[in-house]
Amino acid sequence: MEFIYRGKKVYYEVHGKGDPLMMLNGIMMSTASWTPFLKDLTKSNQVILIDFLDQGQSDPYLENYNHQLHVDMLDAFINHLGLENISLFGISYGGEIAIQYALQHQEKVEKLLLFNTTASTSYWLEEVGNGWNHVSSDPLAYYYLTIPYIYSPMFYTEKREWIEERKKVLVEEIFANKEFIQRMKRLTNSSAHYNVEKDISKIKIPTLIVGCQYDFITPYKEQEKLHQELENSELIYIPNCGHASMYEKPELFLSLLLGYTNTNHTLTIKA
Amino acid sequence: MEFIYRGKKVYYEVHGKGDPLMMLNGIMMSTASWTPFLKDLTKSNQVILIDFLDQGQSDPYLENYNHQLHVDMLDAFINHLGLENISLFGISYGGEIAIQYALQHQEKVEKLLLFNTTASTSYWLEEVGNGWNHVSSDPLAYYYLTIPYIYSPMFYTEKREWIEERKKVLVEEIFANKEFIQRMKRLTNSSAHYNVEKDISKIKIPTLIVGCQYDFITPYKEQEKLHQELENSELIYIPNCGHASMYEKPELFLSLLLGYTNTNHTLTIKA
Amino acid sequence: MEFIYRGKKVYYEVHGKGDPLMMLNGIMMSTASWTPFLKDLTKSNQVILIDFLDQGQSDPYLENYNHQLHVDMLDAFINHLGLENISLFGISYGGEIAIQYALQHQEKVEKLLLFNTTASTSYWLEEVGNGWNHVSSDPLAYYYLTIPYIYSPMFYTEKREWIEERKKVLVEEIFANKEFIQRMKRLTNSSAHYNVEKDISKIKIPTLIVGCQYDFITPYKEQEKLHQELENSELIYIPNCGHASMYEKPELFLSLLLGYTNTNHTLTIKA
Amino acid sequence: MEFIYRGKKVYYEVHGKGDPLMMLNGIMMSTASWTPFLKDLTKSNQVILIDFLDQGQSDPYLENYNHQLHVDMLDAFINHLGLENISLFGISYGGEIAIQYALQHQEKVEKLLLFNTTASTSYWLEEVGNGWNHVSSDPLAYYYLTIPYIYSPMFYTEKREWIEERKKVLVEEIFANKEFIQRMKRLTNSSAHYNVEKDISKIKIPTLIVGCQYDFITPYKEQEKLHQELENSELIYIPNCGHASMYEKPELFLSLLLGYTNTNHTLTIKA
Repeated sequence: MEFIYRGKKVYYEVHGKGDPLMMLNGIMMSTASWTPFLKDLTKSNQVILIDFLDQGQSDPYLENYNHQLHVDMLDAFINHLGLENISLFGISYGGEIAIQYALQHQEKVEKLLLFNTTASTSYWLEEVGNGWNHVSSDPLAYYYLTIPYIYSPMFYTEKREWIEERKKVLVEEIFANKEFIQRMKRLTNSSAHYNVEKDISKIKIPTLIVGCQYDFITPYKEQEKLHQELENSELIYIPNCGHASMYEKPELFLSLLLGYTNTNHTLTIKA
Repeated sequence: MEFIYRGKKVYYEVHGKGDPLMMLNGIMMSTASWTPFLKDLTKSNQVILIDFLDQGQSDPYLENYNHQLHVDMLDAFINHLGLENISLFGISYGGEIAIQYALQHQEKVEKLLLFNTTASTSYWLEEVGNGWNHVSSDPLAYYYLTIPYIYSPMFYTEKREWIEERKKVLVEEIFANKEFIQRMKRLTNSSAHYNVEKDISKIKIPTLIVGCQYDFITPYKEQEKLHQELENSELIYIPNCGHASMYEKPELFLSLLLGYTNTNHTLTIKA
Repeated sequence: MEFIYRGKKVYYEVHGKGDPLMMLNGIMMSTASWTPFLKDLTKSNQVILIDFLDQGQSDPYLENYNHQLHVDMLDAFINHLGLENISLFGISYGGEIAIQYALQHQEKVEKLLLFNTTASTSYWLEEVGNGWNHVSSDPLAYYYLTIPYIYSPMFYTEKREWIEERKKVLVEEIFANKEFIQRMKRLTNSSAHYNVEKDISKIKIPTLIVGCQYDFITPYKEQEKLHQELENSELIYIPNCGHASMYEKPELFLSLLLGYTNTNHTLTIKA
Repeated sequence: MEFIYRGKKVYYEVHGKGDPLMMLNGIMMSTASWTPFLKDLTKSNQVILIDFLDQGQSDPYLENYNHQLHVDMLDAFINHLGLENISLFGISYGGEIAIQYALQHQEKVEKLLLFNTTASTSYWLEEVGNGWNHVSSDPLAYYYLTIPYIYSPMFYTEKREWIEERKKVLVEEIFANKEFIQRMKRLTNSSAHYNVEKDISKIKIPTLIVGCQYDFITPYKEQEKLHQELENSELIYIPNCGHASMYEKPELFLSLLLGYTNTNHTLTIKA
C-alpha cells in the first residue's frame, strides 16, 4: 500500500490483527526481507512493514537528509493509520530511527525493541560508511566491504552455499543497480551525524535491547551503553551471532521479538 | 488438582487454553512460585503446573529415589491428561527432569525449554548438595548455604529489602520446617548420580537453552555443553543474571519462554 | 622475619633481589601460600611476603578493627624497610588493602596489581561473610560455605583428588583450629564496611586488574567497575577460572604478575 | 642483518641477550613494527625479529607459495643461528606460521605464544582476503577494507588523531606502493588453504593463546578452538581490544608476552 509524504510515495504493508507491531528495516533491507517471518509474526499481532524513503518500493529522496526525515515521515504515517500503543521494533538503521521516534513521540510507543542498534555513529562507524560509499561504483568491492562484516564468520562459513547464491544476486543484480546504490549512499550519509547519547536516558518506555557476540557493525559495547542509559530496558546477548541477527538466528529473533512484544511489563515478584 | 501415582498424591494445576506448556519447578520451588507469571503465561497457552513428589502440595516420598521417579510419574501424568505436543519447560532441577523426560519420551515433546540447567551433577555440584544437607538442621546456615548463591550478587544487593523479607520467611518458617527440610534432602540426594552427558545428543527436539552470566549453581559452561550436543538447540545468554532467572529477569524470562514456545521452528530464510 | 607493630609481631619474608614486589594475601592465605611461586617470582624481583595481623605467623589482634589497621601497619613496615617504587600486588582481601594503601600512599607505589578484587563489600558480600561466621564452630560447614565457591566448579571437579586431600586438611586441622577460626572471623568482620567506590578514581598509578569468568566471590562486574574508575588501568579476563586464580591458573597468574611488574608503562606507539 | 634462503635475502635483527624470543609478524607488519617494544623486550631476552619473504626489508618472492615457504625458511634460519629452546611468538599470520613451525619442529620450540591466531583459513577469512585483493589497485579502498576491521571500533574512535595520521601514510605511501601491494597479495594468497585443525592437537609445547573481544579478523571462537585442542595451552581474553592487540593494549601485550616467556611451566601447586 502507499502513503504520500512530502509528495513522495512511501510503501507499506499491514498484515494480521492484534496489537500493532511496527518493523523498521536495517539499511540494506526492505519490507520484502520480512516475508519469511510473517506467518509467525501475524499469529498474535498486527504487523506493519514500511520502506523508508530510498528503501525498497518507496520513492527515492534525491536531496540530502538525515534521520529526521524518516522520523517525521513515520509520525505522519502513524497518525495517518491512527496507530496507538505501538510496539516499535528496529534493527540497526531501523533501530536508530526507532530510538529517535521514541524520544520525540514517547506517548505513542508502548514498547521499544532494539536489535543490533547503536546510540551514535562513532568516527569508526562513519568510516565504515565512507568505505561503502568509496567503492560504490564497483559491485564486487561493495559486496566485500559490506556482506562479510554483516554476517558472523561462523554463519558465513557454515551457510556457504546460501551465501554464494546471495553473493551472485547481490553482485550481479542489486549492487550493480545504480539506483539502488545511489539510495544506499544517501541512506548511509543520513547516519553520519547521528548521536542521541545525551538524550537517550529520557526514554522510559519498556525496551528490549539485543546484542550479538560477533556483531562487527554495532558491537555489543553499544548495546551495553544503551542498556546503561535506559532505565526500563532489558539486555540480552546472543552468542555466536553476527549483525544480521534475524537471518543468523531466526528462531531466537522471533522468540525475543514476539515474546517481548506480547508480555506484560508490570510484573511484580513478591517474597 | 490431584493425580495419584504409586499411591501418592501429586498436586497439579491446569490454567488457560491453547498449546500445552508444562512447567517443571526448580528444587526449592513449587506450583505456587509461578503465580505471578500466570496472567502472562495463559494469554496464549494452556499451562500445566505440577509439584514433584516431595515438592509443594504433593505428598512426601519417604524412600530414597533418583530422578527416574519423577520421569515415570510425569509420563503417567501426561498419559492421564492425554497431553500431546507438549512444550516442556524446566528450570534447574526441573530442567534436568525435562531433559530425561525428553530422552525417554521424545515423541510427546514438541519443544524443550531448558533454563539454568546442567547435563550432569559434577563432583562440585554434588558437594554443593552435600553442604546443603550437612547444615540442614540449622535454618540460618541452610539459608547462607543456598540463597546467596542462587541469586546474583547484584540482584541480592539491589533488592536488599525484598531479600531481607524473604530471608525472614525462609529462616523462620520454611527452613525451620522439618518436613520441608527432609523433602529438600531427598530431592537433593536424588540428583547425586545424575549424568546424561553420553545420551543427550539423541534429543532432536527444538530446544531453547538459557544461560546466565552470574549463575553460580549451573554456570554458563554447562549450557554451552548442552548446546554443543543438542543439534536443534538455540543458546541464549542473559547478562547480569543469576541462577533464579525467573525472579531476577522476569520480563526476559517470560519473553523467552512464551516467544520460543509459540514460534514456528521450520523457518527457512532464502537468499 | 619479624616486625613489631603496636606491640604485635608481624611476620614477613624477603626473597631475591631487584625491583620490590610486595604480595598481599587473600583472607585465608598466608606467606606460606606463595612458596610454590617463589622460584619464578625471585628470578627478576625482590619479593616481600607478609602476614597481616591475624594471618599466618603474625600475632592475633584481639580487638575489633577494620582494613585501616592493615594499611597503617603496611605503611610502618614499608618505612621500616625503606622500600620505594613498590609493585604492590594483592588478591581478594589483599587487593582491597592494596587499593587503600595506594589511595593513601600513592607516592610509594609504582604499580598496583589487583587480582580478584572489589571496591566495596556489597550487602551480598557482607552476607557471604555473615554466613562464614555463622557456621564457624562447625569445621565441615565452614568448608562447605567457603571452599566450593572459592574455586570454579570446573577446577573443583577436575582436581578432585587434590581437593579431597585439601578438604581433609582443612576440615580436620585448619578449620578445626579455634584460633584460626577466631582470626578468620576478625578478618572477615574487618571488611564489613569496606567501600572506596567514591575515592578510587584518585588512583593514577598504572594498575593491572584481573578478573575471572567463574569468580563467585568477587565477580567480574567488580573488576569492570574498578577498570572504569582507574584511568591508568588495564583489564584482563581469565576464562574458565574461579576466585583463587593463583591456584587455578598458576602459569597465567605468574605471567600476568611478573609481566606487568617488569614492563615499562610509558610506551608510546607511533604511526 | 641478512640471511640468504633459496637465493633470496631474508632480513633479520637480533637484539639483547638471554633466552631467545623469536617474533613472527602479522601480515602487514615488519621488523620495524616492533621498535617501540624493543626496550622492554630486551630487558630479559634475546629478541630475534625477522621479515618473511615479501615482508619489510626481505626480498620479494615472485612465485606463488603457501605458508610452508616461511616454515622451511624459518627452519633454515634457526639452524643457521643455532637457536635452541626458542620462545616462538606469532601474531595473526605470524601465529599461523608459528603453529606450523611448532608442528614440524616441536623439539626446537620451548614455548609457543599465539596472539590473535586461527587454526585455519575459513571460507569467510578467505573471502576477507579476496576482498583485499580485489580492491588492491585502489589505495583508499584497500585502506577501508583492511584497517577499520583490524582495529576495534573503540580504539579507532578514541585514537582518531593517530588513526588519521596513519591513514594518510597508508593511503598516500604504503598502499600506493605497487610493490608493497603485490607482496601483500602473495602473502594473502599464501593463506588461502591453511588448515591445521586435524593436526594441531599434536603440539604438546606450553602454549599461550591470547584472544580479544573485538577481534574482527580472527574472532575469539578461533582461540577457543585452539585452546580446546592444545592440551598444554593457557587461554586468556583481552576485553575491549581488536585484532592488532600489540597496538591497542601495548602494556597487556608486553606483560603477557614477557611474563609467559620467562615463567617456569612445571609449577605444581600442592595441597
